Amino acid sequence: MEAGDELDGFLEIAVDAAKQAGQIIAGSFHSHKNVEHKGKVDLVTETDKACEKLIFELLQKHFPDHKASSLDFTTSLCSMEKFSRLTDEPTWIVDPLDGTTNFVHGFPFVCVSIGLTIGKVPSVGVVYNPILNELFTAVKGRGAFLNGSKITASSQDEIYKALLATEVGTKRDKATVDETTDRINNLLYKIRSLRMTGSCALNLCGVACGRLDIFYELGFGGPWDITAGVVILQEAGGRVFDPSGGPLELMSQRIAATNSHLQDAFLEALHKD
Amino acid sequence: MEAGDELDGFLEIAVDAAKQAGQIIAGSFHSHKNVEHKGKVDLVTETDKACEKLIFELLQKHFPDHKASSLDFTTSLCSMEKFSRLTDEPTWIVDPLDGTTNFVHGFPFVCVSIGLTIGKVPSVGVVYNPILNELFTAVKGRGAFLNGSKITASSQDEIYKALLATEVGTKRDKATVDETTDRINNLLYKIRSLRMTGSCALNLCGVACGRLDIFYELGFGGPWDITAGVVILQEAGGRVFDPSGGPLELMSQRIAATNSHLQDAFLEALHKD
Repeated sequence: MEAGDELDGFLEIAVDAAKQAGQIIAGSFHSHKNVEHKGKVDLVTETDKACEKLIFELLQKHFPDHKASSLDFTTSLCSMEKFSRLTDEPTWIVDPLDGTTNFVHGFPFVCVSIGLTIGKVPSVGVVYNPILNELFTAVKGRGAFLNGSKITASSQDEIYKALLATEVGTKRDKATVDETTDRINNLLYKIRSLRMTGSCALNLCGVACGRLDIFYELGFGGPWDITAGVVILQEAGGRVFDPSGGPLELMSQRIAATNSHLQDAFLEALHKD
Repeated sequence: MEAGDELDGFLEIAVDAAKQAGQIIAGSFHSHKNVEHKGKVDLVTETDKACEKLIFELLQKHFPDHKASSLDFTTSLCSMEKFSRLTDEPTWIVDPLDGTTNFVHGFPFVCVSIGLTIGKVPSVGVVYNPILNELFTAVKGRGAFLNGSKITASSQDEIYKALLATEVGTKRDKATVDETTDRINNLLYKIRSLRMTGSCALNLCGVACGRLDIFYELGFGGPWDITAGVVILQEAGGRVFDPSGGPLELMSQRIAATNSHLQDAFLEALHKD
């Protein structure tokens, strides 16, 4: 069997898992609208755990040899401290419910994100938004797709016409907040406009399908927010890198992304006043 | 005929107009993905004009007595200077394509916004997003609806748990940009998170259906961005007001919006460091 065929087999199971988890998310999303806020927060935990269980049971059933998938993911994915063991072996890196704040509020940017690294390289990616029914998929070397149709990053090569996405994150110490808004202030002179959707994985997919031209985020949860999106964006012809300009580190909680034209211009915009 | 029944008749035609215009928008939105950027900008103008023509012809056909609807709207809606004649008579205030930057980029927050003022009071509102197929409607005194189901603003009464929307607008002079990011910086300590969708009308509808808890924008285009959304939000139990705390002025290009609980807390958050 060719390596690509094997990856396609991994993709098929990941899509199945994402769609089943997506059904759980969509059911909760549409039913809890009138639940009081405390109830909503409990529901997000319940939904997240139900999706996680479903996804890892399916992955373990189909890929018992993927050593990483037999880790206790239900704890290992909860924090960066516990997730320190990214090895060369095939490793599923999953966010069962990305965009939890959106989920709680009923804002329709929520998704399942399922990525696979092999030799630490993101190689299979599935991001599924069950509310808008958008399934983004990619296998290394075989292109990126939205609901089965090939997608490519935008052809925009002038940064002053670019649509930028970023997020304000969850940290509210003065240093972080000031850095966040200073960065936005600096960039507003250089780009066309700014969007914030509340989902890191969907922002990467947004650049992949050309809805957005550039994206960066610092201080997000961890590699589960980006692994799938990285494959999808790269296969759509986009670029991912560290906001410093160096190579992306999956474990660093920092990412920048552009189409194929704007990497240099974006780095210059980020780092020059 | 009761006044409410008459308004329902107005709503019916406005919905028809919005849906027909929405078909034009959706067709262009889905077909232009691979057009080069210059082409996209021309397409937005063409789509905008085609929708405007369709909507005003339909309104004029059905409501020849609405003096305002027989104005030359195709020019009068282009700028605030020309739109200085809001009178007590029934006046249709229309944005044929709200979210033009999103339209150009293929970001799915675009809509048709059709509002009717009577005695300068927003009385009928239709906001239709043809990409996500979401139709928001309201008639004064009769509730607000999303695709026919009644909607209400959120019950969130703690501002630190609120999801806020705002926009960065189009002005890029230093004073405006600094005020924009200073305001965001100040608010980030007080609210849960921030979203930017790029559509003023859809942000108002987002508060109306509880996806967002609070919203403000300064310096948007004009009354056509908010008239329909104001009816929808008020009928969903929400509040609209000037960011200073005074009553909303339709012509002022300034708006703040909350559910029924957060108006005072939001004004305090906006005005105290």
